[in-house]
This record gives sequence, C-alpha cells and structure tokens, in this order.
Amino acid sequence: MAAGSSSMRILIKGGRVVNDDVTQEADVYIENGLIQQVGRDLMIPGGAKVIDASGKLVIPGGIDSSVHLQQTFMNANTQDDFYTGTKAALLGGSTMVIAHVLPERGASLLEEFEKIRAHADAEACCDYALHVGVTWWGPKVRREMQVLVGEKGVNSFQMFMAYKDVLMLKDSELYQAMHSCKDIGAVARVHAENGELVHEGTKEALDLGISGPEGMEISRPEELEAEATHRAITIANRVRTTERECVCVCVCVSVCVLVVHAETTLAHSALSGMHYYHQDWAHAAAHVIAPPLRLDPNTPDCLMGLLGNDIINVVASDHRAFNTKQKAMGKEDFTKIPHGAAGVEDRMSVIWERGVVAGKMDENRFVAVTSSNAAKIYNLYPRKGRIVPGADADVVVWDPDASRTISASSQAQGGDFNLYEGQRCHGVPLVTISRGRLVCENGVFTCAQGSGRFYPMRSFPDFLYKKMVQREKVPLSVYVYISFTVS
Amino acid sequence: MAAGSSSMRILIKGGRVVNDDVTQEADVYIENGLIQQVGRDLMIPGGAKVIDASGKLVIPGGIDSSVHLQQTFMNANTQDDFYTGTKAALLGGSTMVIAHVLPERGASLLEEFEKIRAHADAEACCDYALHVGVTWWGPKVRREMQVLVGEKGVNSFQMFMAYKDVLMLKDSELYQAMHSCKDIGAVARVHAENGELVHEGTKEALDLGISGPEGMEISRPEELEAEATHRAITIANRVRTTERECVCVCVCVSVCVLVVHAETTLAHSALSGMHYYHQDWAHAAAHVIAPPLRLDPNTPDCLMGLLGNDIINVVASDHRAFNTKQKAMGKEDFTKIPHGAAGVEDRMSVIWERGVVAGKMDENRFVAVTSSNAAKIYNLYPRKGRIVPGADADVVVWDPDASRTISASSQAQGGDFNLYEGQRCHGVPLVTISRGRLVCENGVFTCAQGSGRFYPMRSFPDFLYKKMVQREKVPLSVYVYISFTVS
Amino acid sequence: MAAGSSSMRILIKGGRVVNDDVTQEADVYIENGLIQQVGRDLMIPGGAKVIDASGKLVIPGGIDSSVHLQQTFMNANTQDDFYTGTKAALLGGSTMVIAHVLPERGASLLEEFEKIRAHADAEACCDYALHVGVTWWGPKVRREMQVLVGEKGVNSFQMFMAYKDVLMLKDSELYQAMHSCKDIGAVARVHAENGELVHEGTKEALDLGISGPEGMEISRPEELEAEATHRAITIANRVRTTERECVCVCVCVSVCVLVVHAETTLAHSALSGMHYYHQDWAHAAAHVIAPPLRLDPNTPDCLMGLLGNDIINVVASDHRAFNTKQKAMGKEDFTKIPHGAAGVEDRMSVIWERGVVAGKMDENRFVAVTSSNAAKIYNLYPRKGRIVPGADADVVVWDPDASRTISASSQAQGGDFNLYEGQRCHGVPLVTISRGRLVCENGVFTCAQGSGRFYPMRSFPDFLYKKMVQREKVPLSVYVYISFTVS
Amino acid sequence: MAAGSSSMRILIKGGRVVNDDVTQEADVYIENGLIQQVGRDLMIPGGAKVIDASGKLVIPGGIDSSVHLQQTFMNANTQDDFYTGTKAALLGGSTMVIAHVLPERGASLLEEFEKIRAHADAEACCDYALHVGVTWWGPKVRREMQVLVGEKGVNSFQMFMAYKDVLMLKDSELYQAMHSCKDIGAVARVHAENGELVHEGTKEALDLGISGPEGMEISRPEELEAEATHRAITIANRVRTTERECVCVCVCVSVCVLVVHAETTLAHSALSGMHYYHQDWAHAAAHVIAPPLRLDPNTPDCLMGLLGNDIINVVASDHRAFNTKQKAMGKEDFTKIPHGAAGVEDRMSVIWERGVVAGKMDENRFVAVTSSNAAKIYNLYPRKGRIVPGADADVVVWDPDASRTISASSQAQGGDFNLYEGQRCHGVPLVTISRGRLVCENGVFTCAQGSGRFYPMRSFPDFLYKKMVQREKVPLSVYVYISFTVS
Repeated sequence: MAAGSSSMRILIKGGRVVNDDVTQEADVYIENGLIQQVGRDLMIPGGAKVIDASGKLVIPGGIDSSVHLQQTFMNANTQDDFYTGTKAALLGGSTMVIAHVLPERGASLLEEFEKIRAHADAEACCDYALHVGVTWWGPKVRREMQVLVGEKGVNSFQMFMAYKDVLMLKDSELYQAMHSCKDIGAVARVHAENGELVHEGTKEALDLGISGPEGMEISRPEELEAEATHRAITIANRVRTTERECVCVCVCVSVCVLVVHAETTLAHSALSGMHYYHQDWAHAAAHVIAPPLRLDPNTPDCLMGLLGNDIINVVASDHRAFNTKQKAMGKEDFTKIPHGAAGVEDRMSVIWERGVVAGKMDENRFVAVTSSNAAKIYNLYPRKGRIVPGADADVVVWDPDASRTISASSQAQGGDFNLYEGQRCHGVPLVTISRGRLVCENGVFTCAQGSGRFYPMRSFPDFLYKKMVQREKVPLSVYVYISFTVS
Repeated sequence: MAAGSSSMRILIKGGRVVNDDVTQEADVYIENGLIQQVGRDLMIPGGAKVIDASGKLVIPGGIDSSVHLQQTFMNANTQDDFYTGTKAALLGGSTMVIAHVLPERGASLLEEFEKIRAHADAEACCDYALHVGVTWWGPKVRREMQVLVGEKGVNSFQMFMAYKDVLMLKDSELYQAMHSCKDIGAVARVHAENGELVHEGTKEALDLGISGPEGMEISRPEELEAEATHRAITIANRVRTTERECVCVCVCVSVCVLVVHAETTLAHSALSGMHYYHQDWAHAAAHVIAPPLRLDPNTPDCLMGLLGNDIINVVASDHRAFNTKQKAMGKEDFTKIPHGAAGVEDRMSVIWERGVVAGKMDENRFVAVTSSNAAKIYNLYPRKGRIVPGADADVVVWDPDASRTISASSQAQGGDFNLYEGQRCHGVPLVTISRGRLVCENGVFTCAQGSGRFYPMRSFPDFLYKKMVQREKVPLSVYVYISFTVS
Repeated sequence: MAAGSSSMRILIKGGRVVNDDVTQEADVYIENGLIQQVGRDLMIPGGAKVIDASGKLVIPGGIDSSVHLQQTFMNANTQDDFYTGTKAALLGGSTMVIAHVLPERGASLLEEFEKIRAHADAEACCDYALHVGVTWWGPKVRREMQVLVGEKGVNSFQMFMAYKDVLMLKDSELYQAMHSCKDIGAVARVHAENGELVHEGTKEALDLGISGPEGMEISRPEELEAEATHRAITIANRVRTTERECVCVCVCVSVCVLVVHAETTLAHSALSGMHYYHQDWAHAAAHVIAPPLRLDPNTPDCLMGLLGNDIINVVASDHRAFNTKQKAMGKEDFTKIPHGAAGVEDRMSVIWERGVVAGKMDENRFVAVTSSNAAKIYNLYPRKGRIVPGADADVVVWDPDASRTISASSQAQGGDFNLYEGQRCHGVPLVTISRGRLVCENGVFTCAQGSGRFYPMRSFPDFLYKKMVQREKVPLSVYVYISFTVS
Repeated sequence: MAAGSSSMRILIKGGRVVNDDVTQEADVYIENGLIQQVGRDLMIPGGAKVIDASGKLVIPGGIDSSVHLQQTFMNANTQDDFYTGTKAALLGGSTMVIAHVLPERGASLLEEFEKIRAHADAEACCDYALHVGVTWWGPKVRREMQVLVGEKGVNSFQMFMAYKDVLMLKDSELYQAMHSCKDIGAVARVHAENGELVHEGTKEALDLGISGPEGMEISRPEELEAEATHRAITIANRVRTTERECVCVCVCVSVCVLVVHAETTLAHSALSGMHYYHQDWAHAAAHVIAPPLRLDPNTPDCLMGLLGNDIINVVASDHRAFNTKQKAMGKEDFTKIPHGAAGVEDRMSVIWERGVVAGKMDENRFVAVTSSNAAKIYNLYPRKGRIVPGADADVVVWDPDASRTISASSQAQGGDFNLYEGQRCHGVPLVTISRGRLVCENGVFTCAQGSGRFYPMRSFPDFLYKKMVQREKVPLSVYVYISFTVS
C-alpha cells in the first residue's frame, strides 16, 4: 500500500502527546484517516506501521490560516500554486492551509471561488479551505456571500481598509459587509491600515525622493494600523448594537495592540523593519509586505510575547512568494514592489525556535497558536487542531532536539529568497501524517498531487459566537479598551 | 459721556478678583479700555465711576469660543445675527465670542469671511473673532487659508468628519488640511463623528420607522465619536511625524474621552439625551444638536467633572438658535431638523450653577473653562482671560449669591425655546464691562450696535505650539492613550 | 454490588459531553474508577449499567477549591464535618473538595494537618485534598512546609493579610512564606485585605456606634482589598526577581480587580452587600463573610462577567457553615460574628443559573470555572477536571432543563440558613459519579461515610510554573498593570 | 546703603517676565521688599538701582521644597548648616528653602522644631520654612502637630514607609497621622518605599555577598516604591472616606508613577543608577540616596518628561550633603552609607539644561516646577512663586545664553563631590533678589548670615483642599487609577 493511503494503520508509540491544554505520555493509533485511540497500553489490530516517537512530541498538524497560492497580486503571479504550496506546508509540519480567493473589483466572488477550487482540487496535497475577499460592494456581493456560506463551505471573508482604489472598502461598505457576515454566521477578517493616509504617506515619501524599500515603513507607520484597528472594532460593535449579536473581527496586527481575536504573521513576529535599510536592494525588497515590518527591534519580541500569553491567538505565514525578478518591478519606486514573502514551510520551525526555545511559550501554547486556535476560530475544532479520538489524523511527530538550518537553496516553497536564511531551528517535523496518510518521513515526501481535499467550513463557529454573546453581558464599565504601542 | 465710552474711568472696589490660578482681595482700576491697576489702596486719578463689589467676585469676562450667528445651516437661518447674539453674550457675562464662517462646498473661504466680517462689524456689541470652516479641499482652499492667517486675523479652522456629502472631509483631505494648519500656525478644530457610519445609522433608523428626534441619538451613538476622535488624533500625529511639529486638534466631545485639548458644549455638560423621548415633539426637537446628547444620565456629570479637573479645557455654548417652526421642517423625518440650540446667554450662569454651586469646580476653575483657557488656546492671553494690569478691560462683576431663573420669555438671545427653562441659577452678572465700556449694569443694556470690534488672532499660539514640542520629548512608552466611555 | 463500588461498569449514553474547550455528542464508558472511552458507537463489555443521558449534559464533576469543614474559627465550630460537607458537595454536583487546615498561631502545621486528615479519612465521601494555613512564621514553619509538600501531598498554602494579631503575616513574613512556596513548588494563596486598616476601620465604626452587621462592609471597604492585592502581587514579584522564577498567587477577590490567577466565591459573585441592611438581624448576620459583600449592586454581575470572560478563573464556595445561634455571639458587636456561610451544595446550580442561564457564560466556561481551572492550578489535570479516557471517573449528568428551588429546609449541608433561599435554579445534577461509583441518582444518596480518599497534590504545577516562565519574557512595557473598580 | 537692604528700590528693565502661565516683555519695579509694578513705561520714583535685563528672563526665585540642613542622619552630620545651605541656594537662583526637622523616635516634635528654628534664624540668608517629621506615633505627637500648625507656622509633615525600626510608621499609624493632617489642614508628605521588603532585600543582598553601593538599587527595586505609593494613596483615600474630605499626599517618586501631587528630586530626574557600578567606590557611594537611582537609562528622561507635562509637579533638590569620609562608613556594607547628596545650588541650572535646553519643557513650565507649584502646594502663592505686584520680591534675572560648568571645586554648598561634575549648563542666575534685597550679582554674594526669615505657612492650602473637594464629585468610573513602570 502506498504511503499515502488513508486506510493505513499507524501506531505512534512512546511519544508525548501535546494538546493546547496539556501534555501527556500516550500512544496514538490511527486508522481510516482518523485518530482512533490515544492512551497507554492500547489494544490495536495487527498490521499497523509502528512509528517510534520516544523522546519526541506528537502534535496536531499545523493549520496555516492565511496563505496566498496561485494568485495574481500587484501585477505579479505568486511563485507557488496549490501543489508546491501545500507540499511545502506538509514538509514544514502544517497539514492544512486556508488560502485566499481575491476577486478583482467588480468580479463575481462565486466565479473566482470556483476557479480557484478547480485549481486547488487538482493540485493540493493536504486539506485546504478558502477565505474569499470582499474587494468591492453591492447587492450582488451580498448575494454571493450567502451562496458561498450556504452552499460552498466558506465561512470567512477578507476585507481591506487599505489598498485605496483597488481593494479598499469605505467605512459604510465595511459596515454593510460585516453586517452580512453576522447575518450568515461568517467570520470577518480585516486588513487594518488607514488606506487614505497610506496613500498620502506614499505620495509624500516619493516627493521627498524616498523610492527604496524603506519607503514602505516610512509611508505606513504603525499608528495607521492602530487607528484602523480601532475603527474596525467600532464598526464591528455598531453591527452588534443593532441586533445584539456580534461580528467577530480577526485583525492582522504588526503592532502591539490588544484586541479580542488577533492573528499575526510569522514575519511580523520574527523580524524587524531594519531589513528595509539593508544595502542589498533585493534583500530589502524581499521583506516588503503589508503592513510593513516595524523598525523597533522590540516589536517582534512583543508580538511573540503576546502570542505566548494568549493575547494574540494565531500566527499564520501569510505566505505569498515572489521571486527577486518580480520584486524588481519596484526597483525605482517602492510602491511597485509586490507585497509578499514566503513562509508556509518555515512557520512551525521558526515559531518553535523563537517562541519555545527562547522561553516565550511552552509546547502547549505552541500548539494553540499554530493549530488549535485557528481550528476553533474557523469552526474546525476538535476535528482539526487536537489529538483526540475521532479527530482527523493530521498529526506531526516533532523532534524538539533535532535542528535544521533554513535556506532558500533547499526549500520546497517557491521564490528564491528566504527571510530566515541561515536561521538554525531546533524543532523539526520528523513525520507528517495528513488525514491518516504518512506523507513525509525524515524529509522524504510521498504524497500525490491532488490528493488533498477541500474542507468546507461551517458557519456560526461556537468559539466566536458564544463568546460574543457572553461578552455582551459584562457591565460596560469593564470595557476599558486599551490600545498602546510599545515602540 | 455715554456709558459705552472706553475712555471712561472705572474703579471696582472691594471685590475678590478671581483669576484661573488664584483669588485675591483687590480693587481694579480701568481706563482707556485697559485694566490699569489691580491691588489694594490704589492711587488713582479723580473722576472715576466707582462700582462697589463688596461681597462680589470680579472675573474676566467670558469668552464663548464657538457660536453661530447669521448663518444658514440645514436650510434654516439662525435666529441671531451679530447684534442680538453679542448682546445676549454680554447680558450673560461673556465679553467675547468666536463665531463660525461656514462656506458652502466649493465656495471661496475668503469671500465668505469678508461677507461675515462686514455684517459683524456693523452689528457686534462686543469683541469677536472668527473661525473659518474648511468644508471642502483643493489648492484654492489651501491658498485662502494662508491669506486668512497671514492677512486677516484668523488662526483657527473648523473641519468636519461628519455631514457626509455636505461638510465632511475624507481622511486624506483632513490630513492635508491639518498639514496646512501646521505650516501656517493655525489651530485645527475638528467635529469628530464617523460620518459614514452616521449615514448608515440614519438609513437604518428611518428603515426601522424611527423618524422622531430620538432617532438622532440612536443613529449617532457615542462610539462613532470616540472612533472619530481617535482617528483625528492619529491623523494629527501623522502631520507631526513628518516634520517634528504638531497640529493641535481641538475636538468637541459629548462623551467622556480623554484627549489633550478638548472643548465641550454647555448642552452636553448639562443635559442628557432623555429629552429626545419627551412627549412634546417641539421639546424633543429643540434638543437636536450634533453630536447628540447622550442617554446615560451620568454623562453630563462626567463631562462637568472632567471640566472641573482640567481634563476638558473649555466649555463653549455652540450657540445656534432656531425657532420651533424651523425645527418643524423635520416633523416627519428627524434628519431634516436643523441641528442647533441657543445658549450664549446662559452659559456662564448654568456652568456656575452646575459646576461651582454643585461643588464640581471652584471659582478659579470656572474662570479657566469659561475664559482663560480659550484665551490661551486662541492666543489672546493675557490680553484676554486674565485680570491683570495691561489686559483689555473685559471684566464682569459676578454676584455668587444672587439668583435668576432662566426662561425663553425673558431672554435676549433668539429662538422661542430655552433648554434650561426654569433653571434657577445662583451666580448673576451684575455689571459687564467690555473693553472698558460699562455695557450692562443690573440688567440694563447700554451698548450701541456695531460698537464691538473684530479681534485678530495671531498664529502659532505658544500655549499649543510650545506644549507640543515638549510632548515630543517624553519617552514613548508613556504615551498610553486611553479612551474610555463611561456609559 | 453496592451502588458505590468503583469496579462497577457504567455507560452514559446519548448525552453531550462538555469539556472546557468543546462540547460533543458522545457516550462515556466507565470502569475501574476511570473513564475508559469517550465517543460514539463504543465497543464495550457486557454488564454495564446504562444511564440514558439524552438531552442532558455530561460534565466533569465540580471541584470546590475552598471549603472549611470541621474547623474552629472565631470561637465557633463549623456545622459541617467531612461527612456532611462532602455529602452535600456530591448532592450538589461537586466530586472533589479542597479543605483548609488552619493551625493556631504557634501550633505545628504538621500536627494539625495529621489531625484533620485522620478525621477526614474516616468521614469523607468524595475525593478531597488539603490547603494548609501559614498563620505564623518561623524556621519551624518553613521546615514543616517542606515536609508537607515533600511527603504529605500538600501543594498549597494559605496566607492572610488580614485578621491582625490572629492570622495576619507582616509583609516580610509573607515574603518569606512565598519564597518558601517557590522553593518547594507550592501555590501561595492569599487572603488580601489590609488588616491594619481593617483594624482601624473597625475601631472607628464601633466608636461611631455602628455595631450591626452593616459594620462589616463599612469597616472593610473594597479599596483595602485592592490595596492588599496590589501589595501581594508586588511581594510575589519580588520573590521572582531574586531567582527568575515566580510564585503564583491566587487571590480571592470580591471586587473587580484584574489579576493573573484569581478565585472568587459563590457568594461574592451572586449577592450584594445590601443584605447587611436587612431588617432581620439573623438574615444580615448570615451574610457576614470576609472580605464582605459589596454594596454596589453591579459587583456580582461584574464578577460573574469576569468569570465568563476568563479573567477570574475559579469560583469556590468558601463554604463555612455556622448556625444562627453561633452568629448571635455578635449580636451587640459585629466583630464577634463568626465569618462564614454555607454554599458547597449550591455552588454548581447557582453558577449555572446566574452564569449560564443569564447568558454570561456558556457551558464550556461553566466547566472551566467550576472544575477544570481548579484542576489545572492544583496540578490535578487532566486526571480531574476533564472527561477524557484515562481520567478519574468523576462525572455528573447535568439536566439543563430541570429546575429545583434552594431552601435551608431541604439542604444536606449544615446550618439553618441558606443565602440563596427560594432561588429557583435550572440546572440540576441528575447523576453523580465519584471515582466510578454511582453515588447519587435522582437525589438518592448511596455513598458510605469514609469511602472518599485523600488526593495528594503534586508540587510544581505546570499550569502555573510554565506560565510564569513565559510571562517573564514579555518586554516589560507590556506590563501595564491595571487595577480598577467598577462601583 | 548695603546691597542687602530690603528698602532698596530696584528697577529691572527690558527683560522678559516669565510666570508659570505666560511670558511677557515687562519691567519690574521693587520697593520695600515687594514687587510694586510690572509692565512697560512704569512711573517710578527716582533713586532706583536699574538692572538691565535686556535679552534676559526675569523669573520668580526658585523654591526648594525639600532640603536637609544641620541634620544628623544615619550617624553623620550634614555638611551644610543653614548659612552655607541657604547661601548656596541663593547663588543657584533659589530664594526660599523648606528644610526638614527630623525628631528621633520618641522625641518631642516641638522641641526639635524649636531647636532647628533657633539655629536657622541665626544663620539663614533667605526665607525658609520647615517640614516636621512624624517619625513615631502617639497622643503626644498628635497634640504637638496641632500646636505646630496652630501656633508655629508649620503646615506639612513628613512620614516614612521605609527605614524600618527607625523612622517607619505602620499602616495604622500612617492612617492616624494622615487623619490628623486632615483635621488640622496640613499637607502629608510620604516617603513611599515598602520598608519591610527593603529590609528583606537588604538582608538577601548582604547574604549574597553584595556589599557595595550597587546593593542600594538591588535591594530596593522600584516595585517597592510603586507598591508603597499605591498603599499611601489607599490610606489617604480611607481618611477621606470617613468625612468626605481629603488628605493630600505628596509622594516623592523616583519611578514613573502617575499620582496626583508628586514631587521628584533633581538627582532622580537627571541621573541613572548606573553610577552605582562605577569603579571608583567614592563615586558610587556619592550617589547613594533613597529611593535609589534606577538602572534604566530612560527613567530620568521619563521623569523629566512628566515634569514637562504637568504630571509630576515639583522638583526639589532633596539636598543632604555628606563628604566622602562620611560615606566611607559604609565601605564594607552599603547599608551604612549615609543616604544623601548635595544639589540645592545646582537644581535650577541642571533642570534648565536637561529640561528647557533639551526641549522637554518651556520656560513657563520651568518656573512652575521649580517655584510656582511648590508655592501653591504649601500655601505661599501668590506671595511667592509669581512675579506680580504685591508679591514678595524674590526675583532672579536668568541668562538663558550664558553657561557655567558645575564643579565641586567651585561650589558653595557643602561636601566634596558633585553629582553633576563637569556638566555645562546654559542658564545662569545673573542677579538674585531676596525679599527686595540684591543678594547676588554676577556671582558676588552680599548677604548677611541670619538675614533670612522664617516664613510661616498657613494651613488648609486652597490649591489642595479645593481641588480635593472637586475631585470627589467626578463619577467614580473615571477614577481609572493607572500605575505603570517604564523600565
């Protein structure tokens, strides 16, 4: 039987099973794509492949809740399609990705969704789901959102407060889009930067002769994120006020802002904006993402600290790979550098190194921020994000003592530059199991293109909707909303 | 010699002189329109009119930093022109007003300014100055702002984040307008409500069948103010960032928000939004102002408390008088009720009653919030806002023991409704002196139409610009900006 | 076989299993005192008693982390010994209690511990553990703490900042006691009120002629709790500073204070201090506990809200039953009323009614605050506090639709007064299983005296010690410690 | 006539008069020890000495609100008596000092006060007043406090929360002492460090072999100050609660804590604790003061920033000069190094350099923190702390362009070490006038020993007592008390 068969029987023996709340010594028995038993002295049928996990951790496979595959963005096509992107994910220890569908202004959300699904079904190696962008507004968009949630397995939409004239919604449109999300039980994701002021800042920077990658940070300071975050929360609360329910906003933050559900990215929690001043233009340009990295060297530490303390909940890769040639479109004008960086393959190891090895989180919290919390927010839990009988067998045997050195030269993901080049990471995925299929073992990848499946996400996630109902009941005086920046 | 002559000699004897920092027993001698001496046992020329102020307070005349006179707004003409408006001010104990010039979208700021000045010069009874509205944006507006500051004695501009499609500026325009203010040393005043969401809220309220005045509060909740305030501050800080200086934003707040320079209005600090539910439509409509009054009965107390503790700095009347018939344009649709209420005549007495008599501020703080702080912000200090030799003789003899009852039937200001009807106020202006002219004595008004003067305001007020420079130097970690609402 | 046998086989069918993170439809199979399987379509041996849980919830048995049984306090003996106390716990849906050992000043901690253990082993019906009070300080106390942790299964100590001259430690003693806790991996529990000022307040109240139960609240205002809480945290941090580790302080709060690990009590989260003004002296006196209930009617709501939002982690009963006659020792002087109230039997139902039914928490959070969190803090998790294969079979079948009315006349717990008299609670424990023994079914109690067991608690709980290590790594600027009161 | 005669007529011409609220071009005429006129084109009698102040500032003489002269402390006698101390003050631009009377435990406050007064009257060169220490507690202390306030011109008392077994009061004693202050209208000053924990920290440091000056900072971390500050405020609020009035606490802070009235010292706002690690023991020991300087290099900047923004109100020198030999008593044990450093002569120039020249405050704020605010708090205003007709003629002509370099070799104050050695300060007092006497001119000191006078301070200062009454009225939800540390 091929390694990739989901009917394979697998017994992972002798490891320490790590969930987000507790670590325990236990064996894990897998069959029919599901985790069947977790415990000691299991009674299992014969013929199982036995994986020795002594001295190793057994963790839920990572869920990368924001990746960009097979996408055209700022006049460039991403270097990864669903095959190379999901292969890299699996090699890095992630067993599910949620990718973005980004319709052009005026285009049908539904048609773009179907197009991406067709591509993905033919290529993906692991389970995947899709966020759909609400990049413009009108009655048609509203109707298509309903169809996507009701019939297509979508439960989250991405809105933009930046990218003026391209993706940006006005406040009134954002309000209506969030309102729709609430009605249909979807999660509203928001890219929070004040696009009007980004626009002004960009003009000013160019006028001042700043055309290099450092212009990215100069023109989009973190106050613009903090402002937009505050505004997004206000708008979300307005939606609530009308009918006593609440939209959950997941805001991607690169600054230290306290909000309820926050997701950050690998790059923001590991790197500072000093890279924009690197003498090698290609190096600097490779770091151009939005929101930009921050100059304050404490910001990554702060974000990692917030991840470690359950204040920021999720770290995604926001993987969007471009190569140096594509970045070079902005050689004379930083505004033309396509925003994006690879990371789907590196996310788990880098967070382990910078988070766990550095003492900022323990292994339970690592599982929470790389997997369980995303599963909860997007209504996949406990089928995903937990090692428990009945769950999908998305499991990684993680070696906390082994190490590997990251390099673009050896990566599976696309692009010719790696932001973590030379970073030595303790914490290596020895074995990756996807829906019961043993897809990677000791770096050998044995998974067929197109063998991954679309994973429909149900609406009205309890994790968010129940929480919001509770929060309503707290006396208002407790709602001291605090926004502070540490730089 | 007429009572109104500024060459008159006046000796105010035996009173307690109240400035914003200290109270002292002293006589005040006035001549040539100026305060000449303050102290005991003064040596003065003969022939002075002596006013006995035993048992009374001698305070700097009030400065009402926001009034609307001779203005067309929401299809209605205000009931007060510069004559009746300034007469009411003087009768109420205010000796200077700053009125608004509000050009239509696309109209010349300069021409509108000149038009209003001509009216005002012919009519005003007391010193006045003018704020000019930046109600649209373009190179012409920028140029005219320069002329107004450089040549016309204007040092403050009013911007609007609400009144979508009418007065509202987009964030990028607001940014540019503030930038201009900084360049020319002017004060940026901001009406902070999220106009996009006000628009959505208004539509929803009407759709739900809410057409009465209560719709005003329902459609414009205080979160929209808090959001816009936060955004305005962010934008102002962006202006700063570029060139290490700072625009000062004066935000009018009806909610309890902590910001650096804040002005509130008499109505917001004295009344709650429960009036919108009054059974008499005319009563409810009379309270329609923007931002609306708040339902929480603690809000006025809170605002008064913030005034009493130097957190909100100024209380203006925001006087804009309409009569019941004008308000009735919105009988079927609250969005057509012109926003505004009278108050220029009542401001000093009501603040005394609700602030000083109620124990929330002392008499020094009363002088600060009704006069000295406005003088400092608008660069009039210490010629205005302080009783000190060399200052303009704008002086009020205030009787803290007398009382009067407010009523529309006896008011000098326009309109046929008074929000404070029946309020008995201790604290009555016995004598009002404007630039050395005795203009009211025991309720008798003896001041000629047009005898007031335009008071040009100089740019770059020290009070703001020096402060901002300092603030820059504080280590950033101290900048915990806290916004909270108490309702 | 008697109902109480732990070798009994039990299958709970058709219910919804509620853990602190997720709810799922699953059957639960129990054998040998352990949960063996959780899932659908389980393969189980024959002969099992089947409990139909259709339409019901299956929850981890409650853990009451603070009860006082067989104790002499303020010259009175508690009305409950370990038999009646644990019987009431089981009837109310709690399957474990942690009781207090409170040595007199100068007495041996070890001897007192052994004495209480002997009593408890002979009487307890459910699992129990023991906190030991550090009521004085000296080298002997330090040595005995080591023995208790090393050999006796104790992992938590209770210190008092109040009860001057009786139980109170000085700051330097508290520091040393916490230091010992850190060295031996124990949890420091702190009763945080400023005992010096309580003493002053008590004298003043009596001097003013206030001798009734209302004197309790008047003499011990919440500021004294907030102050002591802040001080306790400072002291705990000092312990940390020295050697880069951290003592975890569990502070019992009756005011709304944000701290890391907080426990509140049933009474504080359900009742206000208005009861101290009840015309019936016995009614008022029955509510005398320390810290006192608060007058602000919002405080219980606030505490319940904080429980619902994971800010306060645990709600214990702090059960200490006295009868009216005992309370009457303080008829003429409130300081002689023994502090305490019953609640071990009512805790689960009242929290369900005031928390879940009132919409302030969902069923997962209910499990967290009544069971799982205490299990985590005291290092019992996941053997206690979670329904998962391998855990102790401490399970309750909970009927969310049934209701019962609380009354002293029908209670199993001691005392002749119930603070929740007449409260109708939806949410009733239908079946209670303790270590696999079916001990209550439909109100019938079938458990032998002395059949409960001492449950030794291991030191160095991961939940606290790992968390503290993490927290150290967050950049300090994030440590904005905020203490606010909402009344 | 001698330079020091107070009947001298002096005209200061052409300068810019700086008060705490405004700067104006004006001449100042002085006669009979008082400021007689302020303005332009003054009409003055002949025979006046004319001082040309063109290009200079004319400021109120500094008030140093905390100095230690002629005191025995930690087994050492201060190097300055009232003659050298006040001479240094005048040379540095301060015209009044408030010195400490520090009775031994059990000693009579009154007798100690009289003893110090006798010394001071015979020696002082400028106006002085006295704080009295409440270093123990009992009915006699309470009675003597009444006499001191009622008959002796004292209005402030100093309490200590540190110096265990020597000066420290217990919380209940502190409460009673503050209560007495409230009853008699005195200001309570508090040295806020947790003395119990300082004691523990000191023992631990010595046990660890830390005996050098760095032990000072290690054993007294800033959390102990923040804790004690919080506690002091709680105790003060308790005093208030009883009778609806309030004690004002002036806390000396070396950390960044937000409190209502705060005073910091010159050393804390200019220097960091890195000096404790200086290789020269004498250098390190010279910096030993309590609370200690802080290691974080941002702390002085932060404190200066808080001074510049009206959050900390006063900067005193806390002058207490010891020489190197005296410090050397602690050569083997840092706890024996007497706490204290000189600064009365340097305060004005260093604050000007680090505050005004560095751009953290303007000249008005400089006057506020060095003079006017102390005058207001201690009820001296506007006789002291303001240049206004009628005020005492305590005036300094300040040259903002001249500079001088600080050195122990040229100082008038006692001791053989200067913490600011080599600091070049722009901002030099050219002329100092004390009660109308020209006492220093261009560095020449012409003032007779004993010519200064005791200045009795009246009780119930309006500035504090009126403010406190106001603050009571603010709705409580606004009282978000925030304490944060920036290091």
